[in-house]
Amino acid sequence: MFTTNRVQAAPVHLNREHLIDGKAQAILINSGNANACTGEKGMANARHEAALIADRLSLTPEDVLVNSTGVIGVQLPMDKVETGIAGVLDTLGSGWDDAAEAIMTTDTVPKKASATLTIGGKTVTLAGIAKGSGMIAPNMATMLCYVVTDAAIAAEDLRGALSQTSQRSFNCVTVDGDMSTNDTIILMANGGSETGQISDDNLSDFTDALEQLLINLARKVARDGEGATKLITITVNGAKSEADGRTVGLSVANSSLVKTAVFGRDPNWGRILCAMGYAGIDFDPDRATVSMAGIPIYADGAGLEFDHDAAVEALGAEEIPIDINLAEGDAQSVIYTCDLTYDYVRINAEYTT
Amino acid sequence: MFTTNRVQAAPVHLNREHLIDGKAQAILINSGNANACTGEKGMANARHEAALIADRLSLTPEDVLVNSTGVIGVQLPMDKVETGIAGVLDTLGSGWDDAAEAIMTTDTVPKKASATLTIGGKTVTLAGIAKGSGMIAPNMATMLCYVVTDAAIAAEDLRGALSQTSQRSFNCVTVDGDMSTNDTIILMANGGSETGQISDDNLSDFTDALEQLLINLARKVARDGEGATKLITITVNGAKSEADGRTVGLSVANSSLVKTAVFGRDPNWGRILCAMGYAGIDFDPDRATVSMAGIPIYADGAGLEFDHDAAVEALGAEEIPIDINLAEGDAQSVIYTCDLTYDYVRINAEYTT
Repeated sequence: MFTTNRVQAAPVHLNREHLIDGKAQAILINSGNANACTGEKGMANARHEAALIADRLSLTPEDVLVNSTGVIGVQLPMDKVETGIAGVLDTLGSGWDDAAEAIMTTDTVPKKASATLTIGGKTVTLAGIAKGSGMIAPNMATMLCYVVTDAAIAAEDLRGALSQTSQRSFNCVTVDGDMSTNDTIILMANGGSETGQISDDNLSDFTDALEQLLINLARKVARDGEGATKLITITVNGAKSEADGRTVGLSVANSSLVKTAVFGRDPNWGRILCAMGYAGIDFDPDRATVSMAGIPIYADGAGLEFDHDAAVEALGAEEIPIDINLAEGDAQSVIYTCDLTYDYVRINAEYTT
Repeated sequence: MFTTNRVQAAPVHLNREHLIDGKAQAILINSGNANACTGEKGMANARHEAALIADRLSLTPEDVLVNSTGVIGVQLPMDKVETGIAGVLDTLGSGWDDAAEAIMTTDTVPKKASATLTIGGKTVTLAGIAKGSGMIAPNMATMLCYVVTDAAIAAEDLRGALSQTSQRSFNCVTVDGDMSTNDTIILMANGGSETGQISDDNLSDFTDALEQLLINLARKVARDGEGATKLITITVNGAKSEADGRTVGLSVANSSLVKTAVFGRDPNWGRILCAMGYAGIDFDPDRATVSMAGIPIYADGAGLEFDHDAAVEALGAEEIPIDINLAEGDAQSVIYTCDLTYDYVRINAEYTT
């Protein structure tokens, strides 16, 4: 799955070509340079990278995927890329943890997660890594995420499972509302497990395990948003549809005023109501209820009495739940975001200069 | 014109009622408290304010408008309001400049503008004041704006002129993308000029003068956005429609990454391309062009060579133009915003606590 931004990086274009048959055998990833807005030369560079990797690993170039993350609009330093590729065989097979670290840009910690499921007494394993940090918004809410599994599963089932599970994981993450030119999730299966082919009988078990893994990574991406001090988890219940709930939750999650209030441990719940109100979804403000950090703060169209000092204390936690009930239906959505801090401004005001 | 937020303050509800006949004779404004999310008691308080003013000024309550701006979810301190209203006759007639100052919340300067037009050798005057600062996003992009004129003009013409001119002024301002619960523009005409009734022959002259005045105020609101150090003016040319241009311009204007880059004097134009790309408008990135602070930076799908030091120097100016050409049509839109700074975070992390 790739970014839906109208401006897409060269590797995104190349990977779409290479995945027409649903098959790939290697992924090359670089950080520090996005190879986006780099014109024909950028596209030629991406193709050249795939060819070099194919040559080193005795694959066809069409089975090599190429990913880049970093500054936009600068050509790749191909001499460095070629030197790196020349030595790639030496580290192959032992690099999962190193890869999780190597793809970081302004991330402060590597992000890893795994999950297993059992089919007929045999184990299927999934393992994932991701990088996030800034320029993070839904559809897709990540820069780069890689999940591998030893499941034996048809390419179309793999695509279906990824499309479904990304809705409730990476498409529910936002750091700053900025959707990147390079966002990519790649899910690869090598069929190495002893369970036999995943069938209609156990596809939902596989999908559930994948969803847990992706939500785990998505939460880590939100918590490690640029400058973040807190993970904010916005649960919208009582929506007419999951999409409506997501729209309201993302509106609150993208509100700079809500995010700065959480940073400042300020129980200024009016900003939550305000952001719910401009989400563009029909609901009755007199029936909705809201709680913040576990404290009921709004019902019946007005604020509830609460202990201000206790609220400030509760907002000191590292994970802040905001629970909204729209009282319009039965659907639920959960959105993951972080607070907006001085460090977000510092990091992004100093990025290239 | 009022906010389109689904959550609307009590005075907004009351004013809609009072303006059904297109007529009003007095406006009461308070800052410090928004009287929003205050339930039935908030509505009763707004009604009581209108009744008190009507009593003092010998008007009917339906001809009194009430506006509030400030913190959401706290009941108005009616004792203070009543004391203020009791003394209102003493200052009536001399308070325009005082009013511009009194409606400020986190604004750093009062915002005033005026315009005149000549009809048959006689002068029509318009004068406006506004407050803005935070929670500023289009539809409507202001908290409070008041324009008065001595034009003799039918209520429906006045409504039409305001609706048309707010499209290119306050609906093109964004500070933080947060649309308020209280946004209001009120335009009042008393017919005091000697030009006779505004007719179809000169309505467009009146509308042009009004548009100039509103754009003037809108720029001041953007420049004085919370924590702002710079006014950013985003001009989108070559759009298929004015609405398309506005969508692209607002996407760039609301990008935290663009706003922090301008704050940091960082010519990181990739963030502009990225925000254009996720605006949801169809365009060809290979044909679009972009310049920043007067320096052409992007064309033919890739970055242009430019003098980095000169760009950093140019980004030191107090007004930063970003000029985009989508090469898709003939329409133009201009969007006004500001940079995102440490002070925005400080102001909003410390607002109520």
